[in-house]
Amino acid sequence: MAVSLGELAVRFGCELRGDPETLVEHVATLVGADARSLAFLANPRYKPQLATTQAAAVVLDEASAKDCPAASLVCQNPYLTYARIAGVLHPKRQAPPGVHPSALVAATARIDPTAHVGALCVVGERVVVGPRAVIGPQSHLDDDVTLAEDVYLVARVTVCRGVAIGARTVVQPGVVIGGDGFGFAPERGTWIKVPQVGSVRIGADVEIGANTTIDRGAVDDTVIEEGVKLDNLIQIAHNVQVGAHSVIAACTGVSGSTSIGKRCMIGGGVGFGGHLTIVDDVVITGTTMVSHSIMERGVYSSGIPLEKANTWRRMVARFKRLDRLEGRLKKLEGAAGAPHDQEEDDD
Amino acid sequence: MAVSLGELAVRFGCELRGDPETLVEHVATLVGADARSLAFLANPRYKPQLATTQAAAVVLDEASAKDCPAASLVCQNPYLTYARIAGVLHPKRQAPPGVHPSALVAATARIDPTAHVGALCVVGERVVVGPRAVIGPQSHLDDDVTLAEDVYLVARVTVCRGVAIGARTVVQPGVVIGGDGFGFAPERGTWIKVPQVGSVRIGADVEIGANTTIDRGAVDDTVIEEGVKLDNLIQIAHNVQVGAHSVIAACTGVSGSTSIGKRCMIGGGVGFGGHLTIVDDVVITGTTMVSHSIMERGVYSSGIPLEKANTWRRMVARFKRLDRLEGRLKKLEGAAGAPHDQEEDDD
Amino acid sequence: MAVSLGELAVRFGCELRGDPETLVEHVATLVGADARSLAFLANPRYKPQLATTQAAAVVLDEASAKDCPAASLVCQNPYLTYARIAGVLHPKRQAPPGVHPSALVAATARIDPTAHVGALCVVGERVVVGPRAVIGPQSHLDDDVTLAEDVYLVARVTVCRGVAIGARTVVQPGVVIGGDGFGFAPERGTWIKVPQVGSVRIGADVEIGANTTIDRGAVDDTVIEEGVKLDNLIQIAHNVQVGAHSVIAACTGVSGSTSIGKRCMIGGGVGFGGHLTIVDDVVITGTTMVSHSIMERGVYSSGIPLEKANTWRRMVARFKRLDRLEGRLKKLEGAAGAPHDQEEDDD
Repeated sequence: MAVSLGELAVRFGCELRGDPETLVEHVATLVGADARSLAFLANPRYKPQLATTQAAAVVLDEASAKDCPAASLVCQNPYLTYARIAGVLHPKRQAPPGVHPSALVAATARIDPTAHVGALCVVGERVVVGPRAVIGPQSHLDDDVTLAEDVYLVARVTVCRGVAIGARTVVQPGVVIGGDGFGFAPERGTWIKVPQVGSVRIGADVEIGANTTIDRGAVDDTVIEEGVKLDNLIQIAHNVQVGAHSVIAACTGVSGSTSIGKRCMIGGGVGFGGHLTIVDDVVITGTTMVSHSIMERGVYSSGIPLEKANTWRRMVARFKRLDRLEGRLKKLEGAAGAPHDQEEDDD
Repeated sequence: MAVSLGELAVRFGCELRGDPETLVEHVATLVGADARSLAFLANPRYKPQLATTQAAAVVLDEASAKDCPAASLVCQNPYLTYARIAGVLHPKRQAPPGVHPSALVAATARIDPTAHVGALCVVGERVVVGPRAVIGPQSHLDDDVTLAEDVYLVARVTVCRGVAIGARTVVQPGVVIGGDGFGFAPERGTWIKVPQVGSVRIGADVEIGANTTIDRGAVDDTVIEEGVKLDNLIQIAHNVQVGAHSVIAACTGVSGSTSIGKRCMIGGGVGFGGHLTIVDDVVITGTTMVSHSIMERGVYSSGIPLEKANTWRRMVARFKRLDRLEGRLKKLEGAAGAPHDQEEDDD
Repeated sequence: MAVSLGELAVRFGCELRGDPETLVEHVATLVGADARSLAFLANPRYKPQLATTQAAAVVLDEASAKDCPAASLVCQNPYLTYARIAGVLHPKRQAPPGVHPSALVAATARIDPTAHVGALCVVGERVVVGPRAVIGPQSHLDDDVTLAEDVYLVARVTVCRGVAIGARTVVQPGVVIGGDGFGFAPERGTWIKVPQVGSVRIGADVEIGANTTIDRGAVDDTVIEEGVKLDNLIQIAHNVQVGAHSVIAACTGVSGSTSIGKRCMIGGGVGFGGHLTIVDDVVITGTTMVSHSIMERGVYSSGIPLEKANTWRRMVARFKRLDRLEGRLKKLEGAAGAPHDQEEDDD
């Protein structure tokens, strides 16, 4: 789709420096751009690429605009403006309204006539699919699932019985929503399954990455609030609550009944214990072990940056004999007549 | 399903304090309960909710019973008793016997007439499906798979050729059992695939969580013994053995040829090296790195609880210069004429 | 398939010590072998099993051959030779050329007549499938996907629009290639999706393990070069590049725009930050946090081996009060009149 810079400047409130009649057709990186491309500069690390870009136009901020060899769309938040323009140049694919003849839809399901049900989908009893929702091929909506308007299941998504998904939520392939929570009661060395009778409620404007799993609640529901963004291969256990507009990166696991606040940002590979509370506006860096509740906003970590393996092995060895280091220090203190800190002996 | 408290007390060996004619229809949390609900109190953290519950009855132990404002079903292990009662109030869904007309079943497959094969399943040659087994929609059983009685594949499960699954085992959606193990032989900077000719054997009463993967053995089989419970997004590599009644939480990976004993409890996000032996009754806390064998039962860890990021960065910096701390200590010891521990210099 | 030792020795350049007419039919471990089995000895840990093996023949190196009670196929690299012989004794299953009648193939797709499209596959517009490629059951190739010759999608693989896969690449079940990258621009406490308009290009001779996810690029493509081997449950984010013949073990996550060099070996459960560069020939041990670029080949680590939980808790407590240990040391140094290292105070 070709759009003029003038139109883009008006629609997205940018200051245009260049010919408003110039057309752009697609987005590109600064390096990969050609004369039909719109590029952007948001991350300063890519600033050196600006000088030689072949882009027709670049979305950037005031500070960088003076160094731009192409037409400029100047704005305060170039990444956000780029995101919006990219949505115009590369619109979401349209799926034709209607049910693919190969899909199997229960007689009691109510599919809005503007919704799309793809090839080889299986749709259970009493399922409700809202206006313009798109259910990609090979997806499965079990009985009593509800999808609000404009939900987009990309392909091969499994939604177990009774799950409700809010408007405009996007679910990538391979996701499983509403599998049984992991609940077992011990009985003389074996484990008896605890029926998982809750469900999952997912708010509006959520995104769920490929092969992520969200378990149904044990009694009450697991809840993902509006605007939450979950990356790929994330585990959300039963009765977890993720607050509105929180973002979680890939490979993170959240154990049962933990509640994460609103607007949190969680890195990749983070592990949350169960029954914890994380307040709003907490940032947790990648590969952190969250072993206790966080009651104060801020940034939290527990990952250790890598070293060359030889160096690392020595560091770990020293770490593991810290007790002896303390002992030697105490001996010296004793010899010097210095009182040592009583607290150190507590363990 | 409505059941009287009297019937529940008799069936599950509880002491009933309240009207045996009272009916309960569903389970609920103490907070969410209404006059038709049965709630339970097992975790002391929820004790404060007991006083105001609206439940018709609560399953709890003797110690808590005196504080219960509702009818009480008193027993020694309230969680276990609750699990059993929940199974009565919320019975597993029944799937009608027979093969869905959209399923593709090879002529040589033997499906017990009481079993259910769901919509759009693909069932290969010589597959055997036992009595009352349920194969949820969009599942795939490749050639020579065997499912014992009452196996329940919830939906979209992939079982590769030759895999055997024991009675009553439950498999959540997205699971892959019997994908090729990760075996490659190096050859001048490239990797040659080693055919994975073993299979996977899964015992009775196993549970496998959503999107978990269990690879087939390289030569012999990968083995999951009876009663094992695997959470979501777990990786079980080729030739791993997991002993009976062990439990593994989500996001854990077990490398090839490692053997985990019976009745072990493994936390989430744990990483096991390959070719290790873990004896019976070992507990490993979440996010631990299991880099060597464990020959003694007990509890093991290597995860470090998080800190505020500023504090954490300082801690890591100190950790990384421990060598200099040791050096300074040694210098002081020298000055004081104290002999220092020879062992400290080994690295 | 029965093959004579003489034929194997000739084909694979081994020195045969034994009767060339002896037939072997399948591979086995040293312990599990019978008179029709070919076993191998590559890992010295299994040497003790050689003496009592019942195998018809063993593939091993010169050093071990003298202790072999069975016929020997002597070679320099027994594991590699074994891999090749196993490929002869256990050939890949053949899939009949043609499109299964239940598959849904768009009219504009071009499927080579020697290729196989399995049951209940969905193949989109303009897809190109090369000679002898096999698309296992329940797979989905979205519009404009290209598969080169001999690609093998085992079963239930999802390949999103425009993805290209090189010759002989093998993809295990549950894999998602080309899901949207995780890109959102912040806007006043919410997140606006950044269209992911790049694609994924996968080279020849790649292997991708079960339920692994590879996201499409934000603008340019995500690239997996030839010969790369990815294990199960790996996350490859948008715009990542993995260099030729690198190997990554299970449960590892690579964040966006990170570039991994050629011939790297990455352990399981490793977490890579975003926008990093890892040069060729780097080895990273399991559960390492890769928080910065690696510009020098070598072996890198940051995982800490486990301890008994009581011991571990004390170690962590000491680690967390290292500042006080330093303080006490400094006091002693002051008392002794020793100058302390200024650098220690930087934090």
